[in-house]
Amino acid sequence: MRPDGRAASDMRQIMIEKNYLMHPEGSVLVSFGDTKVICTASVEDRVPPFMRGQGKGWITAEYAMLPRATGQRTIRESSKGKVSGRTMEIQRLIGRALRAVVDLDALGERTVWIDCDVIQADGGTRTASISGAFAAMSLAIEKLAQEKELPLFPVKDFLAAVSAGINSGGEPILDLNYAEDSTADVDMNIVMTGKGEFVELQGTGEEASFTHQELLDMLSIGRAGIERIIDEQKSILGEELTARIVSDVKS
Amino acid sequence: MRPDGRAASDMRQIMIEKNYLMHPEGSVLVSFGDTKVICTASVEDRVPPFMRGQGKGWITAEYAMLPRATGQRTIRESSKGKVSGRTMEIQRLIGRALRAVVDLDALGERTVWIDCDVIQADGGTRTASISGAFAAMSLAIEKLAQEKELPLFPVKDFLAAVSAGINSGGEPILDLNYAEDSTADVDMNIVMTGKGEFVELQGTGEEASFTHQELLDMLSIGRAGIERIIDEQKSILGEELTARIVSDVKS
Amino acid sequence: MRPDGRAASDMRQIMIEKNYLMHPEGSVLVSFGDTKVICTASVEDRVPPFMRGQGKGWITAEYAMLPRATGQRTIRESSKGKVSGRTMEIQRLIGRALRAVVDLDALGERTVWIDCDVIQADGGTRTASISGAFAAMSLAIEKLAQEKELPLFPVKDFLAAVSAGINSGGEPILDLNYAEDSTADVDMNIVMTGKGEFVELQGTGEEASFTHQELLDMLSIGRAGIERIIDEQKSILGEELTARIVSDVKS
Amino acid sequence: MRPDGRAASDMRQIMIEKNYLMHPEGSVLVSFGDTKVICTASVEDRVPPFMRGQGKGWITAEYAMLPRATGQRTIRESSKGKVSGRTMEIQRLIGRALRAVVDLDALGERTVWIDCDVIQADGGTRTASISGAFAAMSLAIEKLAQEKELPLFPVKDFLAAVSAGINSGGEPILDLNYAEDSTADVDMNIVMTGKGEFVELQGTGEEASFTHQELLDMLSIGRAGIERIIDEQKSILGEELTARIVSDVKS
Amino acid sequence: MRPDGRAASDMRQIMIEKNYLMHPEGSVLVSFGDTKVICTASVEDRVPPFMRGQGKGWITAEYAMLPRATGQRTIRESSKGKVSGRTMEIQRLIGRALRAVVDLDALGERTVWIDCDVIQADGGTRTASISGAFAAMSLAIEKLAQEKELPLFPVKDFLAAVSAGINSGGEPILDLNYAEDSTADVDMNIVMTGKGEFVELQGTGEEASFTHQELLDMLSIGRAGIERIIDEQKSILGEELTARIVSDVKS
Amino acid sequence: MRPDGRAASDMRQIMIEKNYLMHPEGSVLVSFGDTKVICTASVEDRVPPFMRGQGKGWITAEYAMLPRATGQRTIRESSKGKVSGRTMEIQRLIGRALRAVVDLDALGERTVWIDCDVIQADGGTRTASISGAFAAMSLAIEKLAQEKELPLFPVKDFLAAVSAGINSGGEPILDLNYAEDSTADVDMNIVMTGKGEFVELQGTGEEASFTHQELLDMLSIGRAGIERIIDEQKSILGEELTARIVSDVKS
Repeated sequence: MRPDGRAASDMRQIMIEKNYLMHPEGSVLVSFGDTKVICTASVEDRVPPFMRGQGKGWITAEYAMLPRATGQRTIRESSKGKVSGRTMEIQRLIGRALRAVVDLDALGERTVWIDCDVIQADGGTRTASISGAFAAMSLAIEKLAQEKELPLFPVKDFLAAVSAGINSGGEPILDLNYAEDSTADVDMNIVMTGKGEFVELQGTGEEASFTHQELLDMLSIGRAGIERIIDEQKSILGEELTARIVSDVKS
Repeated sequence: MRPDGRAASDMRQIMIEKNYLMHPEGSVLVSFGDTKVICTASVEDRVPPFMRGQGKGWITAEYAMLPRATGQRTIRESSKGKVSGRTMEIQRLIGRALRAVVDLDALGERTVWIDCDVIQADGGTRTASISGAFAAMSLAIEKLAQEKELPLFPVKDFLAAVSAGINSGGEPILDLNYAEDSTADVDMNIVMTGKGEFVELQGTGEEASFTHQELLDMLSIGRAGIERIIDEQKSILGEELTARIVSDVKS
Repeated sequence: MRPDGRAASDMRQIMIEKNYLMHPEGSVLVSFGDTKVICTASVEDRVPPFMRGQGKGWITAEYAMLPRATGQRTIRESSKGKVSGRTMEIQRLIGRALRAVVDLDALGERTVWIDCDVIQADGGTRTASISGAFAAMSLAIEKLAQEKELPLFPVKDFLAAVSAGINSGGEPILDLNYAEDSTADVDMNIVMTGKGEFVELQGTGEEASFTHQELLDMLSIGRAGIERIIDEQKSILGEELTARIVSDVKS
Repeated sequence: MRPDGRAASDMRQIMIEKNYLMHPEGSVLVSFGDTKVICTASVEDRVPPFMRGQGKGWITAEYAMLPRATGQRTIRESSKGKVSGRTMEIQRLIGRALRAVVDLDALGERTVWIDCDVIQADGGTRTASISGAFAAMSLAIEKLAQEKELPLFPVKDFLAAVSAGINSGGEPILDLNYAEDSTADVDMNIVMTGKGEFVELQGTGEEASFTHQELLDMLSIGRAGIERIIDEQKSILGEELTARIVSDVKS
Repeated sequence: MRPDGRAASDMRQIMIEKNYLMHPEGSVLVSFGDTKVICTASVEDRVPPFMRGQGKGWITAEYAMLPRATGQRTIRESSKGKVSGRTMEIQRLIGRALRAVVDLDALGERTVWIDCDVIQADGGTRTASISGAFAAMSLAIEKLAQEKELPLFPVKDFLAAVSAGINSGGEPILDLNYAEDSTADVDMNIVMTGKGEFVELQGTGEEASFTHQELLDMLSIGRAGIERIIDEQKSILGEELTARIVSDVKS
Repeated sequence: MRPDGRAASDMRQIMIEKNYLMHPEGSVLVSFGDTKVICTASVEDRVPPFMRGQGKGWITAEYAMLPRATGQRTIRESSKGKVSGRTMEIQRLIGRALRAVVDLDALGERTVWIDCDVIQADGGTRTASISGAFAAMSLAIEKLAQEKELPLFPVKDFLAAVSAGINSGGEPILDLNYAEDSTADVDMNIVMTGKGEFVELQGTGEEASFTHQELLDMLSIGRAGIERIIDEQKSILGEELTARIVSDVKS
């Protein structure tokens, strides 16, 4: 039994609130237990300089936390005048993960800006961000597809992320909260498609190492967590959009 | 009649949701119509270097907007590596306004950090921020007073802010939304105490000027708006905390 | 009686030295007592990106202090690598104030850069800067009008700024020097046109508040100060330029 | 057969040149084929502020590339005034990986600074950096152990890193050079200890995804590569230092 | 004959206005023709970290130009957020030059901050800055010596700087103005003591080179210029201070 | 006799290793004794904005040191987020010196980027950098001349740099190592062409001054050092390239 009463392979409660803000093309408030992230997707009709003239789109992400998303107030990165390594790592990860399930040619010369702003943090902010960002992005692209003639629907598959770890008792656990994350020996972030393939896999021994068997155990419970999140995404996005995403026509 | 059907001296709907986040000592979600701001107050047991050793406290504020709080996505100040002049002006204003109703000696050598994060913007973000920040600060100081022996309750009076303006028809209007703010000739921010005294008054002709009479008209409708907001603050903070704030013992 | 022997509604000695530097299109050295500011106006034949293609001009200001303009040496903002909130607030104020009395359409697609460099500070640097900048700008635009065909003379009215305050004895005083400014309870900056209308009004209770009556008292002595400064501007700029500025043709 | 004639599971030629520079406590020039990195380890007798007073040491890493380490000149990060996300990600990875095989208590309140400077890049700069940095760090800590009384030898196990990938033909390949890295569908960095346990595992589908079986294939060839690099490390560091690192006394 | 009618070895008119500002311990306005620089010296009772505990003083300089000191407005370095290479070079030169004629032990653990702010530029701003800074520094140190017990008078000798060059006609010329500087093939800055010894010598061929004989010619006219400036410094600083500077007791 | 056994006018051992790196158009590893610098030259087919449309080329240089090039680890300038004054001074010097021996018209609208990265420092890093950069640049321009039709060979003369100084015994010495540089009273950097003309001369009294005779002595031994370095450059670059550089056709 874990501190909050969950079994080792239980997810926390997942909630995705659709169209959370009035201005963005797509937006959700995603919760993994007490971790809450506002994810928005904004469509811009041009691509960054290094992509111009190729007829392809781009997806990029930014991530931040409110200063009091955490137990101790953290200094704003705008006040420090620079973005931390941790933030950069997370925003690179979010963008890369989303690009893996989007047909950038079908998107045309457009950029989808993803913004993940953590308003309350209790572990798993990057996995909640990816899972919520996928929903916000799908909503924005659905809106784009309604307004513009797109050759194909650009979103090719579902995408979600979850964390798994080995706790100090040597047991594999799913979707770590902050208290568990702080004491775990191993922390792994798994990003997977609806078809069950890996998009990213990042496992880190925290001043520790892990065996091949422990890796397999974490992947196994992680896969079940991913399925659970994708079910939630599908229920929120609705049958019609779900059908467009999983349709085989595009691949 | 105004675009959203309000009379010239009507406020938009005000809502203050108390204890909005789990980590901060005080927090609210404040709405002035579609403008929504998360205000948090964090107490730190030390003061900035220029205040040390005087036995007095300090109150400082930071303000930011989510990139898609606005109709067009704005670039994150952390990505630009610097805080804009507008942001600095607003956060200086919020801190200065709050300090005017707090007995810094009674606070002791502590800093109250105020964070105002606009998640949705439709005009009046600075007045909503000040009005919400006062509530978050009061909650945090109430909590502090429960945990520590304070000589006096440091919050000396209520404080709220509202905007008034002269629209292009020459009429004074209260609590401008974004559409009105963009076209008004004059924009005034009024910060007032519960006793009806000014703490800040900032009036700006937008490539225009205004007469003494127009000033008096704006102050008159502004005062009514302030009272309306303070009523809302009182109802949220509750009778007991309200009583401590307006008690005459402190002055 | 005030520390330097002035009556409550006395200005300090005002001096405006015309064409102080050889390179700028317009320049003055302005003194309000011991406060001395070099104000220059530079005309550039293009506007910032957000203004392009509208056929309108722009006026923008920068403000700085020499490190030893003050009693204690202050660190150069270029060495710190960023501009302080106070500096930004002042330069935004100067630019906004000047734009209120200039017909930007008549200016054409040109930028007037205002630079206010305080070489000696004794309170009132922002009001001296605005008052001097108006003179430098008028000189530069006069020169522009001599060289280029302008449809109308773009400067529509005189503009000056002065500070007023409530001293610790509760008395309204005009044009505060540094010693007075440091101890005043209320500090108000008033920017007004030659026609006596407000362009900016910024009143701040310094950890204090002020009443409606105190506001009216400060506005009253402020207005007299503004008239005094505009008289000085007129005498420096000369009859011909004064006539062009106040001519009714333009409005 | 691969472009440079290697079999799928062949490493490029590995060379580690010991004591490459005269000043650092430990230094090597490491080559993985045409990728060449100068790795140095510097010992400082204090730890960063967040570690002070715990009696523990710290290991931190910085990574950079000469502008012409690459085919196209890249702009210096010192000229841009900020470190890129990619650089931060790599230096965080190097530091974290090394800390996993060092007993920070045994190190005492000291920091080992690792600097990895890529002088020539042909793919695999981060894996070469980790593998070389381990050698430089071990040399520096050996020197420290000769000069100071340390309770235990702090290096607990060998550590190396290698890349594996799935090429566009769907085949798993080891130690990708730049040409292969640019076209591979999947790129995985594996950091492993001498005992064959994972310290870091980072797999990325480049606008692609990968299956569980592909993961197992990459791990399998990766493990062989790690062993090959550790053999080289042992031969360079010498029998005596190797014996201290693998000794069981410490664990 | 030169553009402004001077002979090849003529200086422009030199003026040094003493105690130009009210706040600094020492200040002058120095003019070399139309080049005008405000030089101030500020005494601080501590030294930078790298000098602490040695009982020695330090002298450091900062240099800047007003945006319209020049024919074209230059962007403020505070707006750009960084100091240019040219500025750094000049401020390092000024500090180094002044330190050569000051007995830092006699100064005690104090820093003299030199600020050179060019208000109008017409060539030779760095030589005017050094020559004026010497005067400002001497005034500040004289004041310090009046207030504190100093073991010896710290200023050991006079110091001045002048430029010399080879014009496009191959002729050596002294104290180049902007027009001459822009077209000269060679530009040399000479910093010399009152005893006629070099402190700095910086000669640069501007996409050109110069011979040994040309060097000797420039040094010869430079020396005469230095003497001329030092005469002016002596007349401004007065007999008593001059006597303390040239007194042999100190060496 | 000097610390390392050299006579006063002896250079340290000079080595220039040609084509040190695989990617740059020109590259060398240059050693002056234990000082080792990687110099590369990169050709880009465009010039900076201020040079565009003139049909002329440009040469610019960047300089950096590895953190452990020195006895104590120095902080990376990319981590500090800004380039130091010393670095800027050196890179401006290198670029200016090289431009003096290149016919920028003959180069066409191209930029040659010089990068000098000190991997080991023992005094004289700037003179080694210039001397090595000349070789790298010549190699890159030779390659350019083989690939493109150039009107003339752009390199007009050889160029080298050396340091000379006056040691604490008052004796002139050539090519100071770090120990000598730290204790010398005077430090002079001499940059000279193959024809024996000066391109740059920078002499600095380190809290000291130097006489005219000492200047002449340093120039005399410096000239001999320059000849020695140019001999080495010629032997490395080969007879054919040497002939093109010294050919009289171009001047």
